[in-house]
Amino acid sequence: MKKFNVAVVGVGAVGVEMLRCLKQRKFPVDTLRVLARSERDIMIDGDIYHVMPVSDDAFDGIDIALFAGTEGEKGAVVTYASVAVAKGAVVIDNGADFRLRDDVPLVVPEANRDEVRRHRGIIANPNCTTIQMIVALNQIHKRFGLEQIVLSSYQAVSGAGKQACVELFDEVKALAEANEDKGYDDAVKKLKRDFEVFGEQIAFNLIPKIGGYADEGYTSEEWKVVHETRKIYADQAIKATATCVRVPVFGAHSETVYFTTGKDSTLEDVKKALVESEGVVFHDDSELLPMPLHVETQDPVHVGRLRRDPFNKNCYWLWVVADNLRKGAALNAVQIAEEVIKLK
Amino acid sequence: MKKFNVAVVGVGAVGVEMLRCLKQRKFPVDTLRVLARSERDIMIDGDIYHVMPVSDDAFDGIDIALFAGTEGEKGAVVTYASVAVAKGAVVIDNGADFRLRDDVPLVVPEANRDEVRRHRGIIANPNCTTIQMIVALNQIHKRFGLEQIVLSSYQAVSGAGKQACVELFDEVKALAEANEDKGYDDAVKKLKRDFEVFGEQIAFNLIPKIGGYADEGYTSEEWKVVHETRKIYADQAIKATATCVRVPVFGAHSETVYFTTGKDSTLEDVKKALVESEGVVFHDDSELLPMPLHVETQDPVHVGRLRRDPFNKNCYWLWVVADNLRKGAALNAVQIAEEVIKLK
Repeated sequence: MKKFNVAVVGVGAVGVEMLRCLKQRKFPVDTLRVLARSERDIMIDGDIYHVMPVSDDAFDGIDIALFAGTEGEKGAVVTYASVAVAKGAVVIDNGADFRLRDDVPLVVPEANRDEVRRHRGIIANPNCTTIQMIVALNQIHKRFGLEQIVLSSYQAVSGAGKQACVELFDEVKALAEANEDKGYDDAVKKLKRDFEVFGEQIAFNLIPKIGGYADEGYTSEEWKVVHETRKIYADQAIKATATCVRVPVFGAHSETVYFTTGKDSTLEDVKKALVESEGVVFHDDSELLPMPLHVETQDPVHVGRLRRDPFNKNCYWLWVVADNLRKGAALNAVQIAEEVIKLK
Repeated sequence: MKKFNVAVVGVGAVGVEMLRCLKQRKFPVDTLRVLARSERDIMIDGDIYHVMPVSDDAFDGIDIALFAGTEGEKGAVVTYASVAVAKGAVVIDNGADFRLRDDVPLVVPEANRDEVRRHRGIIANPNCTTIQMIVALNQIHKRFGLEQIVLSSYQAVSGAGKQACVELFDEVKALAEANEDKGYDDAVKKLKRDFEVFGEQIAFNLIPKIGGYADEGYTSEEWKVVHETRKIYADQAIKATATCVRVPVFGAHSETVYFTTGKDSTLEDVKKALVESEGVVFHDDSELLPMPLHVETQDPVHVGRLRRDPFNKNCYWLWVVADNLRKGAALNAVQIAEEVIKLK
């Protein structure tokens, strides 16, 4: 079996998960180069990885370069993507910088794996919130079309990086300790500490804004759902809209998705499409419903609470949960890499 | 000023909040009778209340009887409402038993205070999830009508009673202590304990089902939004639909509300209606957004993140937060009582 030289750039929450996915999925790695700002050793699941400083030379001989940088940041990928491509690597970027460029495929393999073929060096990984909805609705879109998608998200703190998880846990720990005798009544009182990542206490709270404000009062995160969905489904007519909310959950994003099919459909049609969808686990009402605590660390997108809207034809509700670091980021990127090596 | 003999039946989370509201709002109380299953003393904000066992005789001479029983339960109100009414009291019931009866007004004073006039002894308090949306959209409904409401809820554990708050706090405390050395990585692991109230760990989790399953796969909580909204707005044409989700927040429910006006409207029209609405605090994007941690213990309904849907005419998003025990239950009941005494 042919093997490939792989670079992973960035060892934050997503980079670590990329290394985990490469190993777990037995990706045919020849040389693995882990790159970040500073040289050091890191341990993941008992394995030690030597991290080298990222530089032009570090991409010599690399076949596939996975950039883990979080979305929207102007990180390593902006500086090094063209270098890596010039040296013959295929760049797979987790960030938002290239996603909407015409010459860059934006890929969720379950939905549009053929797009990989038209890459010109760079392939983009969509945003976490978009990916899990795309996987969930993919067969429904293919069979019946999608006229409208109204999405409300319940997003885990891990989407804001490792430090965000530490912040939630530290808040909760401080609250639990400070109020040992007084019990829950005082636990809801505001902590006297800095909220570095979120600017607000996230423990026992919700923050109804993810990303900065952009056009029409929507946040950057909310616009990603609109534009990325249209590009991945190759369907500019879809009316997608979203409200994105941060919740005090460590891993796995959840979403309520209210959608309208383009052609006439029945509840049975839609259920069948979901059951037959690649990468989707359908939960019936009689089963345990998808919950972030159970879905975390899992690969598939879990869906449940499917219902038709009795008052609006072709309208349905769906509850969608997936691990935002895995299918929402690292796993999807590694799946793209798996498609890339099929072409080689 | 005329004073009234008031009974509060039930001293759970809602009953306690009713006693708090009566005092804070200086309700003209002559005799106050606090009734529950067993006789005891309870302390609320430093005041001691003597709780007497509920019985037929306990309603002698009572003008207003506030039943705090949580929705859906066949509690004291089923047994004692007719007794209290026969003895001349006006019953205001927080539960779900009478809400949809034709001869029982279902009242949110900001929206339909005149309904109080047609009571025949019993007035019902709507469900928490419904109340805050009704207050938020009230002026919009009056000025432009409402064709559709698509609601996703983020509901606090206090809506499931006092024990639910204890359960969330105990889970968080156990997790924090068990993982003192290991940090956040292990905090997400499942607790080995009983989950009495929710059947699942609620700390760092979401539970996408509130109430039991009813028609079409919707839960009882979700149907309440449909039926109660139509009754309160006296508008059977409104197409309302909801997905209700429990979140690890102690107090205050949050909602994303995607709505369509019946008549043509502009973003400015809708903003003006919200700013001019009774009981609503409008938050501009430049201000601190409404969050449950800040809204808890407050009376008004806080709204923010108002946006138009650029792809669908007359469609808008709104983020709605209110204290579910106060405006969502106890405060609304006491406000109904304030309307009742205006008639006396």
